[in-house]
Amino acid sequence: MTRPAFASWMSGTNDITKTFLSAGRIPDLVNMAGGLPDPSVWPVEELAELSRRAVLDHPGDALAYSPIDGLPRLRDALAARFSMGGLALTRDNVLVTTAGMQGLDLLGKVLLDAGDTIAAQSPTYLGALDAWRPRAPVYRPMTPGANDFDPEAAFAGAKFAYTVPNFSNPTGRLVPLAERERLVAAAHATGTWLVEDDPYGALSYDAPPLPRLLTLSASGGPGPYGGPVIYMGTTSKELAPGFRIGWVIAAPEMIAALTAAKQGSDMCTSGLCQLVVAMAIESGLMDRIVPDIQALYRARRDALLAAMDAHLAEHLVWQRPEGGMFVWATARDPRLDTDALLPVALDHGVCITPGSVFDPRHEDRRSIRINFTLNPPDRLAEGARRLAAAIRAMPFGT
Amino acid sequence: MTRPAFASWMSGTNDITKTFLSAGRIPDLVNMAGGLPDPSVWPVEELAELSRRAVLDHPGDALAYSPIDGLPRLRDALAARFSMGGLALTRDNVLVTTAGMQGLDLLGKVLLDAGDTIAAQSPTYLGALDAWRPRAPVYRPMTPGANDFDPEAAFAGAKFAYTVPNFSNPTGRLVPLAERERLVAAAHATGTWLVEDDPYGALSYDAPPLPRLLTLSASGGPGPYGGPVIYMGTTSKELAPGFRIGWVIAAPEMIAALTAAKQGSDMCTSGLCQLVVAMAIESGLMDRIVPDIQALYRARRDALLAAMDAHLAEHLVWQRPEGGMFVWATARDPRLDTDALLPVALDHGVCITPGSVFDPRHEDRRSIRINFTLNPPDRLAEGARRLAAAIRAMPFGT
Repeated sequence: MTRPAFASWMSGTNDITKTFLSAGRIPDLVNMAGGLPDPSVWPVEELAELSRRAVLDHPGDALAYSPIDGLPRLRDALAARFSMGGLALTRDNVLVTTAGMQGLDLLGKVLLDAGDTIAAQSPTYLGALDAWRPRAPVYRPMTPGANDFDPEAAFAGAKFAYTVPNFSNPTGRLVPLAERERLVAAAHATGTWLVEDDPYGALSYDAPPLPRLLTLSASGGPGPYGGPVIYMGTTSKELAPGFRIGWVIAAPEMIAALTAAKQGSDMCTSGLCQLVVAMAIESGLMDRIVPDIQALYRARRDALLAAMDAHLAEHLVWQRPEGGMFVWATARDPRLDTDALLPVALDHGVCITPGSVFDPRHEDRRSIRINFTLNPPDRLAEGARRLAAAIRAMPFGT
Repeated sequence: MTRPAFASWMSGTNDITKTFLSAGRIPDLVNMAGGLPDPSVWPVEELAELSRRAVLDHPGDALAYSPIDGLPRLRDALAARFSMGGLALTRDNVLVTTAGMQGLDLLGKVLLDAGDTIAAQSPTYLGALDAWRPRAPVYRPMTPGANDFDPEAAFAGAKFAYTVPNFSNPTGRLVPLAERERLVAAAHATGTWLVEDDPYGALSYDAPPLPRLLTLSASGGPGPYGGPVIYMGTTSKELAPGFRIGWVIAAPEMIAALTAAKQGSDMCTSGLCQLVVAMAIESGLMDRIVPDIQALYRARRDALLAAMDAHLAEHLVWQRPEGGMFVWATARDPRLDTDALLPVALDHGVCITPGSVFDPRHEDRRSIRINFTLNPPDRLAEGARRLAAAIRAMPFGT
């Protein structure tokens, strides 16, 4: 029996996820592909007690349908958490989402018709490309660090500009203050929405955080924030991914549009999960665990970099990331095809992410993304050794 | 500053939600508009304990990213729960969704290009229309109960046929067995996907449930189910909406496509919520509370119908629903515009849902949907009295 055809965008999906899922069945694999947290950072007993209390003490909030835009208690807690300096946020600036990915999906849903332009920091987070693929956008790559980068020209005519200023996925790059100011100025000048996707903001290992684009774009005037920045956050890296709680902070007109779109996507986000996160913020739990997370991941970053220095320096070049979860490395030999490297690496018992999945045109075949948060130092060292062996086994492995 | 335009579908959204939200601020309103459960049916203490144990005993499942298609434990529990007769389901037939609404959204995402045809049981669930609006489908209305209804003609060329066989939202209608068999036969004959949206299956008040389209469509052959039915369920009515857990049961090729789409929508559903639901199914809690829910809602349905007999019989006609959450009533006087009735009803302190929101063409102005699950009998009676007064206050109120 012939079934109706799937929608046209479905033929353009990549099969990297399938590759990774099969990889999960390889015994003794060193998995440095994903962006997974170490489970040891989760405050299990406190979260179990918060979950119990959320249901028992507040069944009307935990078990009912929530308002589409989120529980007022959580929206208020987030508005207070992100208000600072000249930035005064109210509940009307905040939408609770089903984790960070839904914020990206809803953004595409409210802004993109087929063929619309996105100015995107390049290389670009794979999940954002996944979220927007069904809407068939055109990508204009942005490289904020390049000498000739002109943000006003990049933003002109785009529905939005997409950036990950803190420890970008995949490159780990921190956008410095002067560049942040230029991005915000260009958003003010052109009127284009400026997306600040910030899952890694708290994962800063070497220096205090830089001001958010959101904060830099505040007018300091009265009333709720009405500027061009659409800020996206999540609890997945700072607390735990299993709650699937994220948020968008933006001008009320954008929050209202995203709320209308969320109604037809999942109606509302789990009240139980929203309450646990609200209580974790209010009680200080979320802030209290961050230093331990930073210390653990800082040590792992240093361990990976040391192992890369020892085993991979002749094959790859990279920059030391000041935060986040990844090292982005590029082949010295332009003949090394990193798409072809992946299956060879799997044969050698190590998994990394090839750079092509972060390129809307799939043209980058020289880079790889390496995660350092999931594995302890000895496994990271073993992974670097295996990766070097895999590269040497390639036709052009130097 | 001029911002970029919103996507074109955004101009077609209805403002019924805004009307309802404003209605929520009217003091002493009798709200019979939504499809809300009575909070008294929730087993709060047991759910609080399950939530605590889910996190404490299974932090790796509750707090981590789940597989995109759901926790194997919950998928297995659902496969076992819905296997019966000749229907043998495996984990590969099951996708966990972020409640029922996400199933509808994902279905549109994987099947609909702009202009594609949906054969939809008419009138149609408002949430389904919301979910598919961004994809600009064409609707072919189906009325399975009509004498001249030809399911093969209705299905031909449609990407899918959408039905709510059990106590349809909004009409409360139960599709009888012979019609179910005709729908399934037409799906087999045409190859079209046949969606069985079943949030109300357990809310049957007068008779044992009829066989599901899913069960009727099983071949009884070996291997996992591969038939044309796409079954959608949710815990929102049987357990509690706050977990946002739903599921799709379908052929593995459809589950794989929906999983690819879910990756770019919210990556995965909350592990904590999935675990609580799995434990509620395994422990029998979900089955144990259903008789009390049925008894409560049966009494409320009867109370509403008695009050309608007393106050509304001269204005409206309706059928007694054998289950679900709603009575669907149609004006005797064709001049009574139920869109115009809504604000008058609100002025009289009662809220109902006008029928036009369940019509893709917004042409039905003679019907209303009345909920009976949220309010106790005395409030339902007061609501019926107020609604009658509102109708009498209309220009053509008889």
